[in-house]
Amino acid sequence: MGIVAVGSMAFDSIETPFGKVAKVLGGSANYFSLSASYFTKVHCVSVVGQDYPADHLKLLQDRGINTAGIKMESGRTFHWSGAYSYDMNEAKTLATELNVFEAFSPELPSEYKDTEYVFLGNISPDLQLKVLDQVKNPRFVAIDTMNFWISGAKDTLIKAISRCDALIINEGEIRQLTQQHNLIAAAQLIHQWGPQTVVVKRGEYGAVLFHNGKVFSIPGLPLAEVKDPTGAGDTFAGGFMGFIASKGSDKINESLLRQAVVFGNVMASFTVQDFGFANLLHLTPGEIEARFHKFVDLTTFSATAFSRS
Amino acid sequence: MGIVAVGSMAFDSIETPFGKVAKVLGGSANYFSLSASYFTKVHCVSVVGQDYPADHLKLLQDRGINTAGIKMESGRTFHWSGAYSYDMNEAKTLATELNVFEAFSPELPSEYKDTEYVFLGNISPDLQLKVLDQVKNPRFVAIDTMNFWISGAKDTLIKAISRCDALIINEGEIRQLTQQHNLIAAAQLIHQWGPQTVVVKRGEYGAVLFHNGKVFSIPGLPLAEVKDPTGAGDTFAGGFMGFIASKGSDKINESLLRQAVVFGNVMASFTVQDFGFANLLHLTPGEIEARFHKFVDLTTFSATAFSRS
Repeated sequence: MGIVAVGSMAFDSIETPFGKVAKVLGGSANYFSLSASYFTKVHCVSVVGQDYPADHLKLLQDRGINTAGIKMESGRTFHWSGAYSYDMNEAKTLATELNVFEAFSPELPSEYKDTEYVFLGNISPDLQLKVLDQVKNPRFVAIDTMNFWISGAKDTLIKAISRCDALIINEGEIRQLTQQHNLIAAAQLIHQWGPQTVVVKRGEYGAVLFHNGKVFSIPGLPLAEVKDPTGAGDTFAGGFMGFIASKGSDKINESLLRQAVVFGNVMASFTVQDFGFANLLHLTPGEIEARFHKFVDLTTFSATAFSRS
Repeated sequence: MGIVAVGSMAFDSIETPFGKVAKVLGGSANYFSLSASYFTKVHCVSVVGQDYPADHLKLLQDRGINTAGIKMESGRTFHWSGAYSYDMNEAKTLATELNVFEAFSPELPSEYKDTEYVFLGNISPDLQLKVLDQVKNPRFVAIDTMNFWISGAKDTLIKAISRCDALIINEGEIRQLTQQHNLIAAAQLIHQWGPQTVVVKRGEYGAVLFHNGKVFSIPGLPLAEVKDPTGAGDTFAGGFMGFIASKGSDKINESLLRQAVVFGNVMASFTVQDFGFANLLHLTPGEIEARFHKFVDLTTFSATAFSRS
């Protein structure tokens, strides 16, 4: 059971209109794993440099995350720096320093290889493929990416995407990847490449799911305070995949995928309320359930508008 | 019964990535009235110049719209020109020529004055107040505006807003008006000014309703083709107000307002699929009902995620 998840463990330097932090812990593998850990067992694959705090693995282990696939190599940890303006929907990347990821070749611990669910988080598509190759019998594989790889490794990226069941991607990035402005046309092209499930993340505007010719969309939850959107997309993926994995692969249908998109939004809504992944360390099942019901309240309307008044 | 609606009748010159049109019929009163005409009787208040096509009134009358309050004055009709980039959510205004609106002083025909529902469409807040002053016993008054009046007539605009039950406004414009970036904070300030119902229009991302401390949000319907978003906001208001007026003022509660927001989106989704208001001339009740059910399909998910799997 559980999910194999590969992605970055990073130092993030972030500027927003509400504050500035330097070299805080971040990276797609951290956000994804912590988020998914509320739903299922996560087997994490990543690499850190010698400058990474030793007690960080303990923090993941405390959330039940398997850290056997996280290597420490000599050299410096991945470093991303970015800035947000008042429009918190899209980050401007200031620098991407791959560091230890440049030479990283993941080897999955044997207990990872029988896992049915795989999340190929935002990292080099070469590494994403190397991880997928080592999973014996994957049932549901999702992939995320970002503009850095769309610009720099598009062919390999499309090869990786074509082997997946689901693509989870930002609105701006699916347009860049497909060269289609219209989301319906963009999703159709992705379906042709392979994935029959496409989830488009829209920041504060929520997310859209394209699956089997049907469209589902959920708005974001308006929040009184948004401090830092970094990691919201990976947190979304963690809620989405975690919920799916918790239900079992025989139940992956339209209804389950829709709920999974809602749980993605639920988890992301917690992350943005504080800097980094601070909010993902101490949630309770009750808080997650209450937030899910906030999304129900947010979106419910009566479908019986045409009854006589 | 019905709605008194004031707004502009205009020539619009529009550039989008998909085409360019010069001096097509437009204006907030046209879009609103045509949209609302599918739900209720509309009593339209506006002014046109001698250059306006004489058969246009016939077109409105064919939809059952009362045109007794539309004056023709010597001079030229209001002219708006604007441009959209691929991001169709916000127009860039290139020119606003008020022309006959500069000296217009609306006088409501006597049969307008007993109407319970009032829509103060996007036009000078002075004119909005002059119309409202002539309605004897308004039960539900909604107001729209745009950046032109927020910059140029803010004090009068706030005075007009304070006398209304509902503000219907673009996302960018509520931020400009309230000087609050956060939508919850912006809506709270509007509530303090008067309106207990605030509807924020978000273009292709749908709309958000703030009412009685509750929030409702509906995403936009992804469309395979969007030709021209001009008038979408006024069309939204027409569906919103038209639906409310069709149900009677004793029924204005949270549930009705939520459905009204959905009907606003339903009607706007038709408008953007063609240039100008072409699509608002020939709809059938069946098409509107079918589109409403598309929004139900788009947004429905099971709220029973926590049952044992």
